[in-house]
Amino acid sequence: VSLKLSPLTGIPDIQKGDGLAQAMLNALSLNRIGLQDGDILVVAQKIVSKAEGRLVYLPAVVPTSQAAGLAKETGKDPQLVQLILDESREVLRARPGLIIVEHRLGFVCANAGIDHSNIGLDESWVLLLPEDPDASAAQLRTALEAASGARLGVLIVDSHGRAWRIGAIGMAIGVSGVPAVVDKRGDPDRYGRELRVTQIGAADELAAAASLVMGQADEGIPAVHVRGFPYPLRESGLSELMRDRDADLFR
Amino acid sequence: VSLKLSPLTGIPDIQKGDGLAQAMLNALSLNRIGLQDGDILVVAQKIVSKAEGRLVYLPAVVPTSQAAGLAKETGKDPQLVQLILDESREVLRARPGLIIVEHRLGFVCANAGIDHSNIGLDESWVLLLPEDPDASAAQLRTALEAASGARLGVLIVDSHGRAWRIGAIGMAIGVSGVPAVVDKRGDPDRYGRELRVTQIGAADELAAAASLVMGQADEGIPAVHVRGFPYPLRESGLSELMRDRDADLFR
Repeated sequence: VSLKLSPLTGIPDIQKGDGLAQAMLNALSLNRIGLQDGDILVVAQKIVSKAEGRLVYLPAVVPTSQAAGLAKETGKDPQLVQLILDESREVLRARPGLIIVEHRLGFVCANAGIDHSNIGLDESWVLLLPEDPDASAAQLRTALEAASGARLGVLIVDSHGRAWRIGAIGMAIGVSGVPAVVDKRGDPDRYGRELRVTQIGAADELAAAASLVMGQADEGIPAVHVRGFPYPLRESGLSELMRDRDADLFR
Repeated sequence: VSLKLSPLTGIPDIQKGDGLAQAMLNALSLNRIGLQDGDILVVAQKIVSKAEGRLVYLPAVVPTSQAAGLAKETGKDPQLVQLILDESREVLRARPGLIIVEHRLGFVCANAGIDHSNIGLDESWVLLLPEDPDASAAQLRTALEAASGARLGVLIVDSHGRAWRIGAIGMAIGVSGVPAVVDKRGDPDRYGRELRVTQIGAADELAAAASLVMGQADEGIPAVHVRGFPYPLRESGLSELMRDRDADLFR
């Protein structure tokens, strides 16, 4: 079975309080896609954050002395650094222009995923990641399932850099109804021997695929329809993808 | 335009010296896919390595004292550790069951990508990565372009774990004709502001997408046909994706 990813064109600029589910249903209709059991909708973080009103006005932020110090070290705006700290559990690395953190949501990323671009406002405004992306994905899925009668999955994705490779790729930051990790431990290979790669980051593989279709999440198509995902849908969440701190060799 | 990834069923067990291009052309025909300009073929590392005879018989390997020490530290077979060292520039981390290296090909991965499973031989044999995956991809592309008259891209992929996330995902290890990194630096966002994410790891995004369709590279479909890749094809190579050691914050 082929895997087909279709860009959902026609989603308007999303503002705080806008109904994402209705915007997506309209776009699906415009693109002549009828939802079926097993389909997955992949949504860019940005429109979820915008719908949830996660914009922050930087001049209203009061930086602590810790933020001021880190701002000096990295050459970043102290107010922005304060937001990065507020959104994070721990700073892993800092150098000019870059702060790598463990986000409060559990993943490691640059600058806590806080974004200046594509907001449509002046440099004083930035956009935080959704408060609870798993919950946002679940809410969207419930609305889309109710409207369509189909059993669906929803992923919320963002583009993240990698420690050892150039170029950002799409990764899952919110998961509902899509297996985040597919566990093959104990399964035999085609010759009856145990498999080498035993856990597949399926939600991240799909996030990367969908990001390719979004073009560039910051300029492009904010949602993608997926048909032909090769694993059975089931309840899941971002936490499946998060490595325990004890197992982290690179902190 | 949709992105469509189709599994190439019907590729037989590949042995040393088998013609991969002909096996893929046969599978394309079996799956009723005619190659068109802009199509990409994604191939699992394993069948490339097998075709190139990269099998090694472990009992014939003589471990150095360095390998013996690392074997003791990690609980791994000393002969296997010797091969891991031979295939690597540097050991980054070692712990029981796991050796993280910078591979001689430039990327960071576990156990130098050396594989026991799906070889169809007893535990004495392991499979190394291709000698020069960019060259392997280019050779395959030349043959497929000659046979089809179409302008194509070829990716060779493997599944790699990540530092901070559970689950392996497909990543590019050999690239021909596919832009490995798409550089948007300086491009404006939809509101005319500079983009936040400016380099896209497009070949890795496609590798992840194709790995999803391969199911699990160790048990599944060893090649995938891609139509609708959203960026123009151009000459490229794996080195585009490799971060300089100086820019590596997590070594």
